[in-house]
Amino acid sequence: VRIVVTAGPTREYLDDVRFLSNPSSGRMGVACAQEALHRGHHVVLVAGPLECDPPKGVRLVRVESAREMARALRREFPRADALVMTAAVSDYRPARRVRGKIKKTLRTMTLRLVRNPDIVAGLARRKGRRLIVGFAVEARALERNALEKMRRKRLDLIVANSPSSFGAHVADFVILWPDGRREVLRGAPKRRLARRLLDILEAHRAAGGRTSS
Amino acid sequence: VRIVVTAGPTREYLDDVRFLSNPSSGRMGVACAQEALHRGHHVVLVAGPLECDPPKGVRLVRVESAREMARALRREFPRADALVMTAAVSDYRPARRVRGKIKKTLRTMTLRLVRNPDIVAGLARRKGRRLIVGFAVEARALERNALEKMRRKRLDLIVANSPSSFGAHVADFVILWPDGRREVLRGAPKRRLARRLLDILEAHRAAGGRTSS
Repeated sequence: VRIVVTAGPTREYLDDVRFLSNPSSGRMGVACAQEALHRGHHVVLVAGPLECDPPKGVRLVRVESAREMARALRREFPRADALVMTAAVSDYRPARRVRGKIKKTLRTMTLRLVRNPDIVAGLARRKGRRLIVGFAVEARALERNALEKMRRKRLDLIVANSPSSFGAHVADFVILWPDGRREVLRGAPKRRLARRLLDILEAHRAAGGRTSS
Repeated sequence: VRIVVTAGPTREYLDDVRFLSNPSSGRMGVACAQEALHRGHHVVLVAGPLECDPPKGVRLVRVESAREMARALRREFPRADALVMTAAVSDYRPARRVRGKIKKTLRTMTLRLVRNPDIVAGLARRKGRRLIVGFAVEARALERNALEKMRRKRLDLIVANSPSSFGAHVADFVILWPDGRREVLRGAPKRRLARRLLDILEAHRAAGGRTSS
């Protein structure tokens, strides 16, 4: 099976030395890539800046911004069977990027941000029988917001977690299916969640495309 | 000699999952801390999020925002003999931090930024005979801007480099003294610059406080 895994944050530069980002470490994506490799799958890891080393054996595609990630995925996704979207893609980017370094002459500054393309929703529209696993980080109404996100974006599975899991080695996760099933992993190492996701993904393939646990 | 080294970027959060930052890896500060330890000095490492492991043997003070770094340095600097300020402190922070996660309902968003306190200038005003080494990242007019920065902030030494040295293992550096002397290190590993800075710092101490090479 050919699996594309995305990992890490994206960086949205306002000038050559300043960017908007988030505290994603890339550990979740690296855990998924490792587990998939271990099971003999072909893995493409599309990664923003990582705090940990990518596993040997993946095809690594390095990106920085959300738009670079979108471009890489438009290339990689059509050739894959599944996409595991652990990357924390910035929702917004600065409306313009200044060359060089903005001089800090002003006491206050106003930054105009524009929405980034919704990468996974764009891919899901033409996914065919490919499986897409999304992640939702929600500070409140965790499951309700995650479910809504899965349905709106037409994902096959979503993992809901809270902002505190960023960078953590162990966290609470809820796996949600479109039909309402749910599975809770409490105090789980990211490696354990990765194993569970790969189980689900392989079962889905074996069942010929319908999402089952 | 008691040396405080700062390292890494700072992160300025706009909500629980988004921040403004810069691509500093922390390698320069870690190289300085390592070299100072190696020479038998007492080292306090005040560090933002690092891409590399801090050396064993330092007293590590973890911070995230510029204001946390300022607070840590107000505590550590008075007890030290020298400060090596390699950290890339964010000049601006969001005017307010939202609790939870800003919902991405809007196509565009306006972010108001306010200037962070100038940490090193604040410390330099009451430095007495302590030595302060600054760093300047300049996209253009590198040496002129760095010299101006050193004089305005009353630093004892400044290292000028370009944005491309962020995260790099090897880079071009210019060491500048207040009296106009300069020394160029071309294609130098950060370890080499660290050794040179420690040489200068030790000579300065031996000379009783005046900055000499």
